Amino acid sequence: MIDQLIKMIKSTGAPIVVGLDPMMKFVPEHIKKAAFEAKGETLEGAAEAIWLYNKEIIDKIYDLIPAVKPQIAMYEQFGIPGLAAFQKTVQYCKEKGLIVIGDVKRGDIGSTSAAYAAAHLGRVQVGNNLCAGFDEDFVTVNPYLGTDGVQPFIDVCKEEKKGLFILVKTSNPSSGEFQDRLIDGRPLYEHVGERVAAWGEQLMGGSGYSYVGAVVGATYPEQGKILRTLMPKAFILVPGYGAQGASGKDLVHFFDANGLGAIVNSSRGIIAAYQNEKYKEFGAQNFADASRQAVMDMIDDIMSALGENGKK
Amino acid sequence: MIDQLIKMIKSTGAPIVVGLDPMMKFVPEHIKKAAFEAKGETLEGAAEAIWLYNKEIIDKIYDLIPAVKPQIAMYEQFGIPGLAAFQKTVQYCKEKGLIVIGDVKRGDIGSTSAAYAAAHLGRVQVGNNLCAGFDEDFVTVNPYLGTDGVQPFIDVCKEEKKGLFILVKTSNPSSGEFQDRLIDGRPLYEHVGERVAAWGEQLMGGSGYSYVGAVVGATYPEQGKILRTLMPKAFILVPGYGAQGASGKDLVHFFDANGLGAIVNSSRGIIAAYQNEKYKEFGAQNFADASRQAVMDMIDDIMSALGENGKK
Repeated sequence: MIDQLIKMIKSTGAPIVVGLDPMMKFVPEHIKKAAFEAKGETLEGAAEAIWLYNKEIIDKIYDLIPAVKPQIAMYEQFGIPGLAAFQKTVQYCKEKGLIVIGDVKRGDIGSTSAAYAAAHLGRVQVGNNLCAGFDEDFVTVNPYLGTDGVQPFIDVCKEEKKGLFILVKTSNPSSGEFQDRLIDGRPLYEHVGERVAAWGEQLMGGSGYSYVGAVVGATYPEQGKILRTLMPKAFILVPGYGAQGASGKDLVHFFDANGLGAIVNSSRGIIAAYQNEKYKEFGAQNFADASRQAVMDMIDDIMSALGENGKK
Repeated sequence: MIDQLIKMIKSTGAPIVVGLDPMMKFVPEHIKKAAFEAKGETLEGAAEAIWLYNKEIIDKIYDLIPAVKPQIAMYEQFGIPGLAAFQKTVQYCKEKGLIVIGDVKRGDIGSTSAAYAAAHLGRVQVGNNLCAGFDEDFVTVNPYLGTDGVQPFIDVCKEEKKGLFILVKTSNPSSGEFQDRLIDGRPLYEHVGERVAAWGEQLMGGSGYSYVGAVVGATYPEQGKILRTLMPKAFILVPGYGAQGASGKDLVHFFDANGLGAIVNSSRGIIAAYQNEKYKEFGAQNFADASRQAVMDMIDDIMSALGENGKK
């Protein structure tokens, strides 16, 4: 799956992933109105609204990008109907040829991690049948519980040829509270990064990159530079671009000399572009056109930063 | 909610919580047969099987215990139908008067953590309505992302009078890989424990315990002793009893001088008791009676250990 991701990054020329994190405040009024009329001001109505919103955005941007990253929390808050909209979104994106990174940040121990891995990447045995729950292509994983929390995800990836992005250094302001604390003179995130590199050796793609990648926030470019070196074969998923404050020039050191090795996420900067001053002329009716323009601008920003850095 | 939990621990005389973590291999054949006949060998069939299994166990044990802890991964692996069985289980346990600790180990940043908190403890605004997704009483939270990952959960707890158990030292063999690493001469889990104590100050119950508790594995009694002192007002949820190897005597230092301050979880030791040598005379048909006996034996084991320690 990592090889497939790299192939699609090359064919689109876009090392970016769009975060499908639909908050109700992003959804234009006319869509909410239609959804609530159909299903009421209920969890079902909310789920319908985010599905309609997602679908229109996907239809307008799928040809520009290799992958999407739905954040499951934004669906889970609407209970079962919300999670059904998550599933429908995953399925629809796959039909459109997109790679789906489920941003689920799951992590537990032994058999429980195995159950999460089965839920999101694998299949479960029911009687004589094998059934898939959510069936994303990659998921994000929290490493706090150590190897026996992560290994069950790797085992499922081996079987299903799917991949992981493990949280190493997250993009939020207080990520340093534990992640930056020094252990033997080096921050915790470096120790986690080394472990990611070791875990990744088990499952290498033909591209030279591992199926086991890492999450490193765009808001920490210096740390990204160090982690790029510590985890030479780990693809890095980089959140924090745009709304969280990072821009193209902050990202160059996350990439390798061939302009590969990283994929940059933007969520609200793309899906809620029509609410930004820069794109407001599109209007709420044409919100998905604003998203398309924002994707093109993001690709330009990143590719020109990589170009200036002599990396492309 | 922590005061309610303490009240129920006192009224039942049972500082224990039963983990409703239904794996298909625990579900007796006659229940699987009935479920698959009704719904097929599908995700729906699997979800029906675990719901029937849960219900029979709950009906037999609810009067003995204060709380249950469904592990959401075991439901999530069966996709949307599995999560609907999770929701039904949460709802049914609440109807039976049990406190429900959702073992979800969620954790993300800012608005994403807020969405998880809304999903599991709070409500979401849909048009003019407030709707609840899963509506547990407590959830478990992963602290790796730091304060701005945890604070949104605390904010929802304040509003809804609900509670948290934050992972500090987990029960699994490799929990030490990151959690035991020394920072300024002390293991990471102690730093997390201190932070849990500080977070908890924001939200104290009338009982003297905070709404913000901690998870500390029964398999690490020495660490439990230290953490009990570092977090004097945090209730400790203790997994790892029974199947994971700990017994009553390992647990005494997790409790305070009044026999409060901790609640011990057992999952497969209770729900799959009929598969243990000790309870096999019950047979698969009477699996829930075996669970009832296992609950009574667990209460005896823990209370006599607390008694011997002069704590009760």
